[in-house]
Amino acid sequence: MIEVNFGDIVNAYRHINPYIQETPLITSEALSREFGGQQWLKLESFQETGSFKLRGALNHIMTMRDEELDKGVVTVSSGNHAKAVAYASKLKGISAVVCVPESSPLSKRQGILNYGAELIVYGKDYAMAEKKAREIEEKSQRKFVHSYEAAQTIAAQGTIVLECLLKEGFFDIILVPVGGGGLLCGSAMAAKSIFPDTKVYGIQTEASAPWYNSFYNRELDNDYPFKPSCADGLQGEIGWPAVELALKWVDGILVVKEETTKKAVKWMAHEHKLMIEASSATTLAALFEQKLDFSGKRVLSLITGGNIDLQDFCQFCC
Amino acid sequence: MIEVNFGDIVNAYRHINPYIQETPLITSEALSREFGGQQWLKLESFQETGSFKLRGALNHIMTMRDEELDKGVVTVSSGNHAKAVAYASKLKGISAVVCVPESSPLSKRQGILNYGAELIVYGKDYAMAEKKAREIEEKSQRKFVHSYEAAQTIAAQGTIVLECLLKEGFFDIILVPVGGGGLLCGSAMAAKSIFPDTKVYGIQTEASAPWYNSFYNRELDNDYPFKPSCADGLQGEIGWPAVELALKWVDGILVVKEETTKKAVKWMAHEHKLMIEASSATTLAALFEQKLDFSGKRVLSLITGGNIDLQDFCQFCC
Repeated sequence: MIEVNFGDIVNAYRHINPYIQETPLITSEALSREFGGQQWLKLESFQETGSFKLRGALNHIMTMRDEELDKGVVTVSSGNHAKAVAYASKLKGISAVVCVPESSPLSKRQGILNYGAELIVYGKDYAMAEKKAREIEEKSQRKFVHSYEAAQTIAAQGTIVLECLLKEGFFDIILVPVGGGGLLCGSAMAAKSIFPDTKVYGIQTEASAPWYNSFYNRELDNDYPFKPSCADGLQGEIGWPAVELALKWVDGILVVKEETTKKAVKWMAHEHKLMIEASSATTLAALFEQKLDFSGKRVLSLITGGNIDLQDFCQFCC
Repeated sequence: MIEVNFGDIVNAYRHINPYIQETPLITSEALSREFGGQQWLKLESFQETGSFKLRGALNHIMTMRDEELDKGVVTVSSGNHAKAVAYASKLKGISAVVCVPESSPLSKRQGILNYGAELIVYGKDYAMAEKKAREIEEKSQRKFVHSYEAAQTIAAQGTIVLECLLKEGFFDIILVPVGGGGLLCGSAMAAKSIFPDTKVYGIQTEASAPWYNSFYNRELDNDYPFKPSCADGLQGEIGWPAVELALKWVDGILVVKEETTKKAVKWMAHEHKLMIEASSATTLAALFEQKLDFSGKRVLSLITGGNIDLQDFCQFCC
């Protein structure tokens, strides 16, 4: 099992704190009215680079040894993690190579280049681009910064929930979007190390939900009929190490509809005047679909990022 | 001159604090990169009802005497102030009558009704609706809640800047959208009572800028060639009491282009994934048009509200 504990989360908190924004934690009167209980939103969409991924990237890069810093880093991602690694590398003044698949959108490539990283476009999908990144790791001795399946990433993503608990204390329920699982595992570990009675749930959409069977059958299952999803940040196959860790800390996996997720993007715009990416809106979709009994509960939903194209946003909303 | 001082701001802070959100104060790396200095944004768009107007309305209603509470309140406004009075009245459990002109949009009328206020649609413009509201005040003995030209309103709007200074200390420059002038006067009074060297500026757009001549000629001048404005919250004629107070506390009035203001709405969506109303975007427009030398300065821009229709938003942005 991946070796990571609550002490790692607290250490990550110390290491990254000077470089990140303490993002807003707001109560949503509109959600509380609708679903009962007290509803909070943690707006990690306000993090520099527009998503929570910066925390993991910073924790890797700010704790590298001098000889590692000289060689630089390499990573693979088509989105938020790539931007985060490029930004953190610029902050630390080190060299970064980012591999993206040919399918990655131009807007995201531009974001990576803006932060001064070297961009390599390779292969038709994530797996191919990852192969390329691993080759570069081997040849150049650059440190590979994994986007979810590394102790330092998981620990750093756990600092979001830590921030919330230091500010507002106990929550009955915490809702977390789940893609690779780094954020979900880190969040659950942070929450339950402080308040063991908190229930933590991971959310995917019906278009891509390999976590559901993997978690409930306690066996990796990537035989999912994957379809295109509005929640692109959560899409794709998963790995056993994260599932194994989740089985220790997480209470359940909830699957929501694509349609509800898009509606949640629009609801957030209408009600809180906030643009969020669809991956983030899955937590709200779980509320709308009444997946759990929320009445009388203190509920925290993580809003993980805001990197949605204006075109897509307007299509969902207008 | 309107009788209001820094003590009134501190008292307003005490009275309204239990009922409002302490809204996020974030640094904008993107703005700092572009214009130098350190750039902060106070996101009052996250206030309940979607704008800062709630502070003024609450300060009136939470300090009313029992015999006043029995009679209820009356106000006039087509927008954010009306929503705020309706919300605060519901919170306090008192009766509220809101007069709006026939030109007020249906979406805003619905917001007022949602909070349970009585809605009276009367007259072709604000002045006519105000006349009706004053008639009701006289006949029913309801308390008239003025949206900007009242000591309690001005003091309460000053709490926004007070919150910022308690958190981040001194700012060299504070940029404030100005319509009636309550927020501008309250902000300047709060800032200069703590740090006299702070410079505070009010911003209007070229389509409606009666403040410019009135302020610099030290004489009320409503002979402005008013045109329709995207910043509807700032539009219209102004009154001498607010100008007189501003002449004591405020450092200048800046006039920005309509076009820059719309671009600033889009910039905020693109860069910070936040929907703001055009009135709020005037402060960013003043940065974009380089109206002052911002380099090396600590600059605070007030983002006053987020009540923009999705349709208008998409028209500006897509």
